[in-house]
Amino acid sequence: MRFEVTILGSNSATPLYGRHHTAQVLNCNDVLSLIDCGEGTQLQLQRYNFKANRIKYVFISHLHGDHYLGLVGLISSMHLNGRKEDLYVFGPSGLKEIIDLQLHYSETQLRYNLVFHATKADGARQLLADSNFEVTSFPISHRIPCTGYVFKEKQRLPRINKEIIEGLDIPIGYYPLIKKGIDYTDPSGKIYKASELTIPAALPKSYAFCSDTIYTESYWPYIKDVDLLYHEATFLHEMVDRAAETFHTTALQAAEIANAVNVNKLLIGHFSARYKDLQPLLDESKTLFANTALAIEGQTFEI
Amino acid sequence: MRFEVTILGSNSATPLYGRHHTAQVLNCNDVLSLIDCGEGTQLQLQRYNFKANRIKYVFISHLHGDHYLGLVGLISSMHLNGRKEDLYVFGPSGLKEIIDLQLHYSETQLRYNLVFHATKADGARQLLADSNFEVTSFPISHRIPCTGYVFKEKQRLPRINKEIIEGLDIPIGYYPLIKKGIDYTDPSGKIYKASELTIPAALPKSYAFCSDTIYTESYWPYIKDVDLLYHEATFLHEMVDRAAETFHTTALQAAEIANAVNVNKLLIGHFSARYKDLQPLLDESKTLFANTALAIEGQTFEI
Repeated sequence: MRFEVTILGSNSATPLYGRHHTAQVLNCNDVLSLIDCGEGTQLQLQRYNFKANRIKYVFISHLHGDHYLGLVGLISSMHLNGRKEDLYVFGPSGLKEIIDLQLHYSETQLRYNLVFHATKADGARQLLADSNFEVTSFPISHRIPCTGYVFKEKQRLPRINKEIIEGLDIPIGYYPLIKKGIDYTDPSGKIYKASELTIPAALPKSYAFCSDTIYTESYWPYIKDVDLLYHEATFLHEMVDRAAETFHTTALQAAEIANAVNVNKLLIGHFSARYKDLQPLLDESKTLFANTALAIEGQTFEI
Repeated sequence: MRFEVTILGSNSATPLYGRHHTAQVLNCNDVLSLIDCGEGTQLQLQRYNFKANRIKYVFISHLHGDHYLGLVGLISSMHLNGRKEDLYVFGPSGLKEIIDLQLHYSETQLRYNLVFHATKADGARQLLADSNFEVTSFPISHRIPCTGYVFKEKQRLPRINKEIIEGLDIPIGYYPLIKKGIDYTDPSGKIYKASELTIPAALPKSYAFCSDTIYTESYWPYIKDVDLLYHEATFLHEMVDRAAETFHTTALQAAEIANAVNVNKLLIGHFSARYKDLQPLLDESKTLFANTALAIEGQTFEI
């Protein structure tokens, strides 16, 4: 099953050097989610060959412009391009008001349903669970209410072990039951254990997204043991005081968190416009957590 | 005096082929105005080497997203980049509400004054007259209230004719008076006519911007005799019915207007995403009005 994230932008408050604001596309078994939607996201989607109308879910972390200002343009373009399918948008309640006000003044009546779900930053909430994945929001600590998100694949059923089953006289119609763990009893009464006829599915993978937060342990329980952690790393650690003042994290702190919560891989982003060269941020994170990568636009990371 | 316009974007409703939404920078004697501000304008400003904080005036034609969705991001970046100077924004009254709502939710208190002036689409209005230029808004006819703008240089004073005046014994302190048309009388009573001591300044140039409008004569009086006319030309004339339905103009109609109102040069833009190749739009306009150019991103047109 495909489970991967593509970076569309990862610059912090002011865009620079052609780097865009935060936006990511999560592909879970070909269901596309957009995570944050900075200005210009619709053009970034085109640049990296994503059809906007394939996006089913949108998750907005908070209402600083660099995380959502591309959303109304995207919603409008979906409308103009004939979208019919529902679009599910998760974000702070004010986002609905912002969208509605702009649709009102442009006198736009969307031709599709925009299903809005207000997130809350006062605790963890399961937002959705479909056949592919579950999404949970949790509070992170920024200047305004802000949520992180954890995306977790659904546990898949085991696969039939063809090598073993082909030699046996088991009707194919029983395979779905066997995959569900139900043993098969043949007409002579012989029992074939489901566990011996199947190969267990891989453990479900998980991805956590922490857009903008001060260094604090408060949200660590929610992101424990995820396979891939995207964490903001706005500054180098030499600016740790500035990071705290602005409710942001340093690259070193991001690495410390990755260690503390036991993730497999760390992706750092939300780079301050003061860093033209991002290598020092990567180097700093790697001193504590070797399996770090930079969230560079256009790159796709398997989870 | 410098009087020129640089195109930052000229695509219509949905961006495509890397073409951006409507935005232009007008430079009048080094005072910068932004005309419309589609999504991504702040990045386009960077791309074409304009410092956003040098922009003094912003003029928004109407509240369709492709003409203003870049404004809140630009306003925020100006704030983050330490702007101190007032920013003057002219646009439909709803724009103020849209800006305020988004600043409210991001808990941003701008460090500079944003001076908002609501435009009205019920007649022509002079919006400003400073030492460099005057700006007038006028109604054009779109699906929602929409204004065009005319930018006209101030009439400059004549220049002193150095060749003539150097041979005469006229104190330099009188030059400013002579430029204002006051004759000089020397101690013997001899009169030197100001008109003979000066070279008339060039006639003031003017630029008209018509963003989105159906073909109608109603606004032609406001754009009569301008030097450069930017006019939308969303479609080829073979789609004239579609143009009318969507309150837009064809390239042929834009050329007809340029002839009718007697402009020197026509700039066409607001290209439909259906046209990857823009040459047919240019060719069509040129059949009626030879001095047409395409409003291509990054190009600067002297007025």
